[in-house]
Amino acid sequence: MVFLTSKSSPRARRLRGFQAERDLVKLLWRLGFAVIRAPASGSKIKRAVYPDVVAIHKGKVLVFEVKRRSELSTIYIPKEQVEKLKIFSERAGGEAFIAIKVPGRDWIFIELRDIEELNDKFRISKEVLNKGLTIHDLIKRMNISLGLDKYLRK
Amino acid sequence: MVFLTSKSSPRARRLRGFQAERDLVKLLWRLGFAVIRAPASGSKIKRAVYPDVVAIHKGKVLVFEVKRRSELSTIYIPKEQVEKLKIFSERAGGEAFIAIKVPGRDWIFIELRDIEELNDKFRISKEVLNKGLTIHDLIKRMNISLGLDKYLRK
Repeated sequence: MVFLTSKSSPRARRLRGFQAERDLVKLLWRLGFAVIRAPASGSKIKRAVYPDVVAIHKGKVLVFEVKRRSELSTIYIPKEQVEKLKIFSERAGGEAFIAIKVPGRDWIFIELRDIEELNDKFRISKEVLNKGLTIHDLIKRMNISLGLDKYLRK
Repeated sequence: MVFLTSKSSPRARRLRGFQAERDLVKLLWRLGFAVIRAPASGSKIKRAVYPDVVAIHKGKVLVFEVKRRSELSTIYIPKEQVEKLKIFSERAGGEAFIAIKVPGRDWIFIELRDIEELNDKFRISKEVLNKGLTIHDLIKRMNISLGLDKYLRK
């Protein structure tokens, strides 16, 4: 049995990351999407091409990189993760988002055009995070409505 | 170091299954699709909802259950695997296929309507296998043409 008490242990962080991905999968599945999660985050194969989560509804494709943070503050994202998202979503004909989970808060979704390019990475400022999309906004934005509304009004 | 010599060892079979999935991912990626493979085949999570491989091209979605066999003979498929494929592809608005790899042969793709329902499982007879789709047929069938043809004429 392993107890995960250290906030900063890489293993603990990875496990919390997995859990966030699984939670997003469940949320999107409940909303009526077909959802698939990529194999083992952090593995070699994963890094090559896959986004963390892909959700599809009647041919509309949403592609996500998932970030789990302990608090709502500026997020930095390695350049290659964003490139990967762009390539995948272009091929798929879909839209790419950074999905952010902070414990105790609803999911926040940031469109790629709202993230700021620095020299060697991308940044999502706190201001951008505060104006991020809710899951409700996201679904409206994508013009996905078929039978999903009932799940959101609970 | 583990040598996989026994033809029937479950671990060896699982590894060859993984390899087949990865080969299909590579093939479809090379053809221009956005492709994602499900997490750890055989794990609990996998069994719940995921097909083995999902490939998307500009909103067209192909969903695959991958079968690797040492020879071309009748294939039996558990009912829940087929149901899973159906549910996923319906939500996604895509088409589902059984993708079969026999070493030394090209991939064969079977549409779900061509598999035969028995009491407790599904069956793909050798006759159906012999009339299966090639990757070329599959792409034509889906009306996917954008820039893919050049990869197939090699």
